[in-house]
Amino acid sequence: MARPGALSGFPEWLPRERIVEQHVLDVLRRTFELHGFSSLETRAVEPLAQLQSKGEVDKEVYVLRRLHAGEGDGDSGLGLHFDLTVPFARYVLERSGHLEFPYRRYQIQKVWRGERPQEGRYREFLQADIDVVDRDVLPFHYEVELPLVVGEALTALPFPPVTILVNNRKLVEGFARGVGATDTAAVLRAVDKLDKIGPDNVRGLLVDAGLSAAGAEACLAMAGISAADASFAERVTALGVTDPLLDEGLAELVRVVESAEEQRPGLVRADLKIARGLDYYTGTVYETVMHGHADLGSVCSGGRYDALASDGRSSYPGVGISLGVSRVLGRLFAAGQLTASRSVPTAVLVAVVDEDHRDESTRVAAALRARGVPVEVAPAAAKFGKQIRHADRRGVPWVWFPDEGGHSVKDLRTGEQTPADPASWLPPEADLRPAVLLAPAKESSP
Amino acid sequence: MARPGALSGFPEWLPRERIVEQHVLDVLRRTFELHGFSSLETRAVEPLAQLQSKGEVDKEVYVLRRLHAGEGDGDSGLGLHFDLTVPFARYVLERSGHLEFPYRRYQIQKVWRGERPQEGRYREFLQADIDVVDRDVLPFHYEVELPLVVGEALTALPFPPVTILVNNRKLVEGFARGVGATDTAAVLRAVDKLDKIGPDNVRGLLVDAGLSAAGAEACLAMAGISAADASFAERVTALGVTDPLLDEGLAELVRVVESAEEQRPGLVRADLKIARGLDYYTGTVYETVMHGHADLGSVCSGGRYDALASDGRSSYPGVGISLGVSRVLGRLFAAGQLTASRSVPTAVLVAVVDEDHRDESTRVAAALRARGVPVEVAPAAAKFGKQIRHADRRGVPWVWFPDEGGHSVKDLRTGEQTPADPASWLPPEADLRPAVLLAPAKESSP
Repeated sequence: MARPGALSGFPEWLPRERIVEQHVLDVLRRTFELHGFSSLETRAVEPLAQLQSKGEVDKEVYVLRRLHAGEGDGDSGLGLHFDLTVPFARYVLERSGHLEFPYRRYQIQKVWRGERPQEGRYREFLQADIDVVDRDVLPFHYEVELPLVVGEALTALPFPPVTILVNNRKLVEGFARGVGATDTAAVLRAVDKLDKIGPDNVRGLLVDAGLSAAGAEACLAMAGISAADASFAERVTALGVTDPLLDEGLAELVRVVESAEEQRPGLVRADLKIARGLDYYTGTVYETVMHGHADLGSVCSGGRYDALASDGRSSYPGVGISLGVSRVLGRLFAAGQLTASRSVPTAVLVAVVDEDHRDESTRVAAALRARGVPVEVAPAAAKFGKQIRHADRRGVPWVWFPDEGGHSVKDLRTGEQTPADPASWLPPEADLRPAVLLAPAKESSP
Repeated sequence: MARPGALSGFPEWLPRERIVEQHVLDVLRRTFELHGFSSLETRAVEPLAQLQSKGEVDKEVYVLRRLHAGEGDGDSGLGLHFDLTVPFARYVLERSGHLEFPYRRYQIQKVWRGERPQEGRYREFLQADIDVVDRDVLPFHYEVELPLVVGEALTALPFPPVTILVNNRKLVEGFARGVGATDTAAVLRAVDKLDKIGPDNVRGLLVDAGLSAAGAEACLAMAGISAADASFAERVTALGVTDPLLDEGLAELVRVVESAEEQRPGLVRADLKIARGLDYYTGTVYETVMHGHADLGSVCSGGRYDALASDGRSSYPGVGISLGVSRVLGRLFAAGQLTASRSVPTAVLVAVVDEDHRDESTRVAAALRARGVPVEVAPAAAKFGKQIRHADRRGVPWVWFPDEGGHSVKDLRTGEQTPADPASWLPPEADLRPAVLLAPAKESSP
């Protein structure tokens, strides 16, 4: 059989990388569950009509066709989901009678986008989403809570430090109204492009959107404001623009920033140029910059929306944030920043003296496992040197030698070998699981 | 928006069921890792050529087409995998230079089969596979080990008891040769049908395959042998058939059964009619019957194969077993046999006295979480009765009341309310996670 080649856009990790990914998913799950979020896993497919009616219409969708279907009977009318929001919205509508609201859910799943292979983008990748949705009315305090939950997870992860940038759609929209804009959506879209196209081009877009030169200037000044504390509010007020929606947005953003400052100092920063392209956000919006990897863009984004879904009787407002797990891991693996101390879960390899005594080694292994120690028995009763190399190549820290004269265990890191009792010996707690290690970036970037 | 309907064949669990599923996956992972198996996650897609060249050719495959592709440019040449063996074989070949052999891997992922909707079969379901593969030569002892690992997992799961039925292809093939069969594969296929079509029809097939009446009778007698210990060997020998391959198969099966009897009594049973339909098995084969659910068929199957894959230079023999997670869960949920004590991870709901004091509740929650307790803060400062109902509806066992005069915590199961210190209180260990509960079957089946 020919050796198959890797498919571009479909990342697959090696065992050591997968150990890192599992650790990352464990930390996310643990944090989300500590905050009472329930796990949801939806099917991989949605009806095409659902996928095409939602959000960013330019998303490339993979459509499913049954291979052995008859002529003209092929298309299943189903496509692979391209995010976790569309399936979540559908699930909430479909199961609303079985769910308790507010519904706090996290969802960690693959998503697929039918990008052209040559673009070098991921076509399959892992996302981790958390959302709180309620029926008809969602209290504001969840907009304060969500970035703190995500921040707690990101802080517990072996990732470089992050800053969560927050803004508020009401603030920007109110400010736009205050300077006389009639098409506030156009103002939002213009401000959102500040980092990409620069202030001069944004000024042009704002004037095109009907703002006066002074109004455009005020918007640019507003979008330039950024602060780690509530001082941003005074600076906005000093621009002399007034509007009730602006006041509401300012008050909300102050609450988000001040609560974050108290609960997790240094995590959150108000940044008034953050607008998020998507139409459906209506309150606080979030983006996240990973230090040393600003060029990666936002690794974790979301916001408040007034209608995730609606079934005619009820609407489902919510707030959510999505973390691009594969994108971050792919970057940190490629940068050589993130690795694991070994490529297997195994903490101890039990050597085999000869094949007739394999059962003795099996019994030692069972005794250690009963105390929670991951153990393998050596594949063959080779020379001990070879059995030790088997462990060493995988980064397994301990090798056990069963011997009628008395058992002993060797720490491959120090070379020290000591007598040990299979009925009681335990490795240090830190050796039970592979350690996940973050190294400084090899080359610095802003 | 119209309320969407569920798609048949694509199971999705409710929050309480998902908690059960997570527990099942945790137990599988923990057991496999205790035995040194590494997690592998492959992409969802394989080139169609790979999918069509493998194993059961009648598998219905879902082919992927890019929605926005130009005319005639739609098919991606990719299909969703229908099992975890094809992607595993491809991964081993592709990454053999980066893997250490023997490679012990487990893989827990969704697979897809493009069945017709009306058949009521799963079109998306979760499988859990473990395999050990080696390069060129695989020691026999892994055939002894694998059912014991799977048995340990199944025993630790909240499932009804199981029996793992084992047989050996060499035994059956050798026996067939011993009674004069030239087409031993036809004999295997005939014996494999014993449960489905009965002894008379199998006898007919055996004679069609060229056996004498006496030879067919001997094969039927052999296939009728079943024992929880090595006594099956004497009964086979008593049939008076001799063949070197038969002797080899008998010796191997004795080792499997005797080791299992020593390490996990009552788990494994030799059953000589087990043959597994698939061509590629060459040694021990496994099937698993779940007590009370025999009609479900084998929930966990596999065997020894001499070539998972081959790249011209090396071949990769292995042994593997696959557990149908969704199929078992779907059955046990439908039978009302398996549930969780609550629908959320939350162990404690912290009540909110009034919205001005929400921060006080948030601080209590943070203090409890720092000690590993999953906590939610009440969504609104409603009357305490309503806040208690919020917890009760989800099965949350504890409600915390912050109060300037002193904090207290209420056990909703007993109604008892006691003073508590947020800096030190912990619920009983058993309350930290939802309990997963197996009830007896509502109706008995064989």
